[in-house]
Amino acid sequence: MAFPRPKPTTMETLAMERANPSFNIRKMSVAMHGSERALILKEKFMAEIARHPAFKLSDIHDLSKDELRERTMEKFASMVYFVTTESLETFQLRMQLIGIADPSFWTRFGVAYGLFLGALRSGATPNQMSYWIDRGVLGLNGVIGCFAMTELAHGSNVAGLETTATFDRDTDEFVIHTPHLGATKWWIGGAASTATHAAVFAQMIVDGKKHGVKTFVTQLRDTKSFTLMPGVTIGDIGKKMGRDGIDNGYIQFTYVRVPRAHMLMKHTQVSRDGVVTEPPLAQLTYGALLGGRTSMVTDSSNSAKKALTVAVRYAAVRRQFSSGKNQLETQLLDYPIHQRRLMPLVAQAIAIGFTGLRLQVMYEDMTQALDRMEPSDPNLNDILDKLKETHATSAGLKAFCTWACLDTIDKCRQSCGGHGYSAYSNFPLMYADFAVQCTWEGDNTILSLQAGRSLVGAWGGAIKGKKLAPGVAYLNDSSLSSAKSDSSLSLSDIQRAWNCVAFNVIKKAAEEYVALLKSGKSKDEAMEKCSQSRFIAAKVHTVGYIFRLFREAIEEMKDDEETKTLRTVCKLYGLWQIEEQQGYFLKYGYFNAQQMDKVQESVDALCAEVRGVAIPLVDSFALSDHIINSPLGKWDGSVYESYFAQVQAANPPPKEHPYFNRLIKPLLERQNEDMEDPESAMGLNEELKEIEDERKGEQ
Amino acid sequence: MAFPRPKPTTMETLAMERANPSFNIRKMSVAMHGSERALILKEKFMAEIARHPAFKLSDIHDLSKDELRERTMEKFASMVYFVTTESLETFQLRMQLIGIADPSFWTRFGVAYGLFLGALRSGATPNQMSYWIDRGVLGLNGVIGCFAMTELAHGSNVAGLETTATFDRDTDEFVIHTPHLGATKWWIGGAASTATHAAVFAQMIVDGKKHGVKTFVTQLRDTKSFTLMPGVTIGDIGKKMGRDGIDNGYIQFTYVRVPRAHMLMKHTQVSRDGVVTEPPLAQLTYGALLGGRTSMVTDSSNSAKKALTVAVRYAAVRRQFSSGKNQLETQLLDYPIHQRRLMPLVAQAIAIGFTGLRLQVMYEDMTQALDRMEPSDPNLNDILDKLKETHATSAGLKAFCTWACLDTIDKCRQSCGGHGYSAYSNFPLMYADFAVQCTWEGDNTILSLQAGRSLVGAWGGAIKGKKLAPGVAYLNDSSLSSAKSDSSLSLSDIQRAWNCVAFNVIKKAAEEYVALLKSGKSKDEAMEKCSQSRFIAAKVHTVGYIFRLFREAIEEMKDDEETKTLRTVCKLYGLWQIEEQQGYFLKYGYFNAQQMDKVQESVDALCAEVRGVAIPLVDSFALSDHIINSPLGKWDGSVYESYFAQVQAANPPPKEHPYFNRLIKPLLERQNEDMEDPESAMGLNEELKEIEDERKGEQ
Repeated sequence: MAFPRPKPTTMETLAMERANPSFNIRKMSVAMHGSERALILKEKFMAEIARHPAFKLSDIHDLSKDELRERTMEKFASMVYFVTTESLETFQLRMQLIGIADPSFWTRFGVAYGLFLGALRSGATPNQMSYWIDRGVLGLNGVIGCFAMTELAHGSNVAGLETTATFDRDTDEFVIHTPHLGATKWWIGGAASTATHAAVFAQMIVDGKKHGVKTFVTQLRDTKSFTLMPGVTIGDIGKKMGRDGIDNGYIQFTYVRVPRAHMLMKHTQVSRDGVVTEPPLAQLTYGALLGGRTSMVTDSSNSAKKALTVAVRYAAVRRQFSSGKNQLETQLLDYPIHQRRLMPLVAQAIAIGFTGLRLQVMYEDMTQALDRMEPSDPNLNDILDKLKETHATSAGLKAFCTWACLDTIDKCRQSCGGHGYSAYSNFPLMYADFAVQCTWEGDNTILSLQAGRSLVGAWGGAIKGKKLAPGVAYLNDSSLSSAKSDSSLSLSDIQRAWNCVAFNVIKKAAEEYVALLKSGKSKDEAMEKCSQSRFIAAKVHTVGYIFRLFREAIEEMKDDEETKTLRTVCKLYGLWQIEEQQGYFLKYGYFNAQQMDKVQESVDALCAEVRGVAIPLVDSFALSDHIINSPLGKWDGSVYESYFAQVQAANPPPKEHPYFNRLIKPLLERQNEDMEDPESAMGLNEELKEIEDERKGEQ
Repeated sequence: MAFPRPKPTTMETLAMERANPSFNIRKMSVAMHGSERALILKEKFMAEIARHPAFKLSDIHDLSKDELRERTMEKFASMVYFVTTESLETFQLRMQLIGIADPSFWTRFGVAYGLFLGALRSGATPNQMSYWIDRGVLGLNGVIGCFAMTELAHGSNVAGLETTATFDRDTDEFVIHTPHLGATKWWIGGAASTATHAAVFAQMIVDGKKHGVKTFVTQLRDTKSFTLMPGVTIGDIGKKMGRDGIDNGYIQFTYVRVPRAHMLMKHTQVSRDGVVTEPPLAQLTYGALLGGRTSMVTDSSNSAKKALTVAVRYAAVRRQFSSGKNQLETQLLDYPIHQRRLMPLVAQAIAIGFTGLRLQVMYEDMTQALDRMEPSDPNLNDILDKLKETHATSAGLKAFCTWACLDTIDKCRQSCGGHGYSAYSNFPLMYADFAVQCTWEGDNTILSLQAGRSLVGAWGGAIKGKKLAPGVAYLNDSSLSSAKSDSSLSLSDIQRAWNCVAFNVIKKAAEEYVALLKSGKSKDEAMEKCSQSRFIAAKVHTVGYIFRLFREAIEEMKDDEETKTLRTVCKLYGLWQIEEQQGYFLKYGYFNAQQMDKVQESVDALCAEVRGVAIPLVDSFALSDHIINSPLGKWDGSVYESYFAQVQAANPPPKEHPYFNRLIKPLLERQNEDMEDPESAMGLNEELKEIEDERKGEQ
């Protein structure tokens, strides 16, 4: 009587998708990871955490916030071992993987290692640094730090922070104080239940004079008893959209005293007598920010790849509707619209991945070049220009790559239909965890405007004939303003398209800005007024930049099957984004309407082409079943079996119905007579009329 | 020593925003709610639930899934009282409000009242209906139903469901059976712990012959003991992205017998002898679907308004950065880019709200007209055409309105910076709860394609000279194909712009389809192949339709200040969407590049204009603090105080640190000697080399 199971099974379907791929998956994977070494390391890290009890992921959806917090803390010890025994480069690759496997832990650990230690590194004198190292800051044995910057009423505007640090000459101390509710330190990761110390950002006041925001290492808790220090009030800020493994807290200081020596004095110094020495030049902080943003670009690619691995594998095994009776139902991946939903996102994730790899190299090269240079070196300005430009571009990259990833995760969720809404699909957690990337380290909209401001500045340089840094060098080519497609839709035609359109949207923003200045606006006002055009400039420039870096990476590869596939992927990315932003391409005449129809046709065809290698492509993202943590994306295709098993394991039947007797039984056994006469519904209209009359009386 | 608090306070700021509004907030509110009666009822409902303990919302973020489920069940009894005592119209308005206050409960209650009862209403004979009413289906006293349609391996494709219902002539019963894992009923709301009965969709088999999917009322649990009936296996499907108050479950049937009379036989009938009588005509189900979609359009508007009320009020009181020293910091709402982030979304939510109101009226008018008509009425075909067109348009509206709302919620969250990521902002829950609207009742992408298919069909009618139904009547005007802007950007110019562009994108999709047919594709293949163009056709048509309905609503109002403001809002909506989809307007030449620049300028100016009344506008959404459930959107502006109070209330300090002794103390007190020599890091490279060598050996 049973219906015959449709053939082939989901497992067989995935195996068929993997048969005879047109390229070598391992070679492709090496290319995507930058080196075989990086790939092998990643595989080693994945194997290590897959077996580590603290890194169990399958049960994570059903843990309470408090359980998650405790589980997250369990990972600390294992990670401290690695940080103290392996090279920085290896450790960074390890953290990159942790970032996609367990974003909560990544952050909680990163607060102590990245933010607190980073604050010391950039702000402490060598003596201060060795003092804190002696106290145990490197191995977390003695000091666990947190980073107390943001306040309840101030986030983006660091200069506007209101916590005060007032110098008390008598005792040679600073008095840290929270003057009102809005100045409460807020969102402080690790503060609620982990940290012993905080790097506190506060307005320094010496002899009644404000000197701006400085950093003060302030002890929060006794390191033996973990009780709060006098004057320190800490609370838990509780549930968040995601990353509940982090114990974010608030801190209020009530006249808390710290030794003067706990102010970080690499830059501004305060002497025993209260003499404030400001540094001669504002600090060059491009480097630090650039490193963080580069890692967010890479994380955007990796997180998108994680979601896409699930969505693409599921789309390959899920079958729905058949064209004829008794025919095998069609794989979702064979529907042109489903290809349209997923393939461009695959291309985008790959493009962003290559961009991250190249950014990393550029960043390291520039840092090394700067380190090697003498102040008198004639190339210094070039390097600085390049650093400045990359820094501005990285602001746009951070914004548009994190947005692209967040969008990808939700589109992947939707592409899995109802099952995407199950917590066990892992999309809900991926989305919730990732969402904060659009906000922290600079709100994406604000960062886009910063990138736009720099582009307006670069434009100003270009029209004065200045030779621009490589990332914006196309602005030196004024012939771009009226460039036209050669109708080939080749990679170089696509590159020119982006250069042309970026040129024109930047020009528009810059001309708006200049017109506003001429009309008498201040620079600040003019920049604000042209912010929509600045935003567009940043958006177009950033996509063009990603396309360029991806294409450059491909051009450096030898000409084999992997490269051929990547060229197809690159073309899909470039053309799909042209479609997405077609208004600018038509407006500035790079493409005409007929050519734009061709673009749409090409995207259709490229989606179908990439679909042919979709499973090998996501396989080369090299993400283990443990990392993906979604039965819908199981490598072997055992989607329904794994999903069912996970749902059963996570939801054992209760011994007894928790509320049948209290709530359901009385409802079921209610007698009709218990209800009032339904006719009393008439009463409502009278009641309503009374309210209406009353209201009219008031008017 | 304390810093002076900045003046004015957040409360004073909001009061200033409300001083001297250019329109009467109450009148505006009445307009948005369709009638004063609807508004007064809503206020009454809000007051009722604000004081009802089961409808407490402030603690909802910290409840576990199981606590949420129990809390949700507590609401049943109060709601049953209303359903049995008030008019359907009043009850529907009540449920509309519940839908935004508590989407979990809305669904859980809706499963029993909307879906199960709806299945009976549309499928049961009068005798069957009165049998189930006698059993207590109306008051939930005796029967609590659920709706067992979707299966693990089949969602959208209802005809492909694999559960079987085999007629057993000997016992006059149907045997309901789940033949394999993929046929497990899945996602069944209410199944896990509430329902006693299910409307089971199963392939009917009589004498070995399949007759397609029919509905069988099947008892799941004993109504006294609540134990599962023999052969019924039920499990909880556990955590979801949102709506955790619903107890979705899975059901497997193992040869479960139901009396033949429990098959719903209004349409297909099976006699005692197993004779199957199919209905003469396929059932006209437009009406039922249309009602559901209309309510989803309204819910999209309401949910978006809820998020926007929070984001706009917060943007009014949040100040960040000052232009000069010691100056008051600027309200976020005064930044042009922040206006750009929120004002178009306000306009969109209002536009969708008016669309929902008009759809509701159209739907009721059509139903009444159909009811009144005799089959011989010469107007019958017109009405049916209109119903068919509205049905197709409603598919697109459901898709694009739910997408717009989901997007609005997340943009609102992002616009509140870090605080938007706090669970207490309520954005995370709003997003998670709403997200499923894009998937259920038809996946949005699939629905868009259905709308597109109907537009392609309408086009075919138009070129044959057929007079089309009002919603697509513009396709009869071939002069639109090459229409041009009169440069006024007036409401009528904007309307023509949408008609022109919708005309052209539909034409493109239709011509693609025809070309594919001519190239030898089957109708199905051709439709699939042109799906991207169909999708675009649906998108453009839908926005133009919303604009038209909004504009029609305004044109019917008397010419007062409220109407003037709504005209501005309407213009912003129309022009902003033109900007968003500018590619099509340029491609088909309705606007040229210079005109498009004007559009951008106008949107900037309209955003600034709407910003001037932003607080009065969101006030007229008439959502109480209880419904909004976000301290960031408090009506009185006491944002930080309320937020702090809620965070404190939700997170009382634990008596004892839950894991200091186990996890943190050992870390802090670890001796350096406990760590291995850092030089052992060298070991890693050797290890890695070994792995590499091994791998090379394999190749």
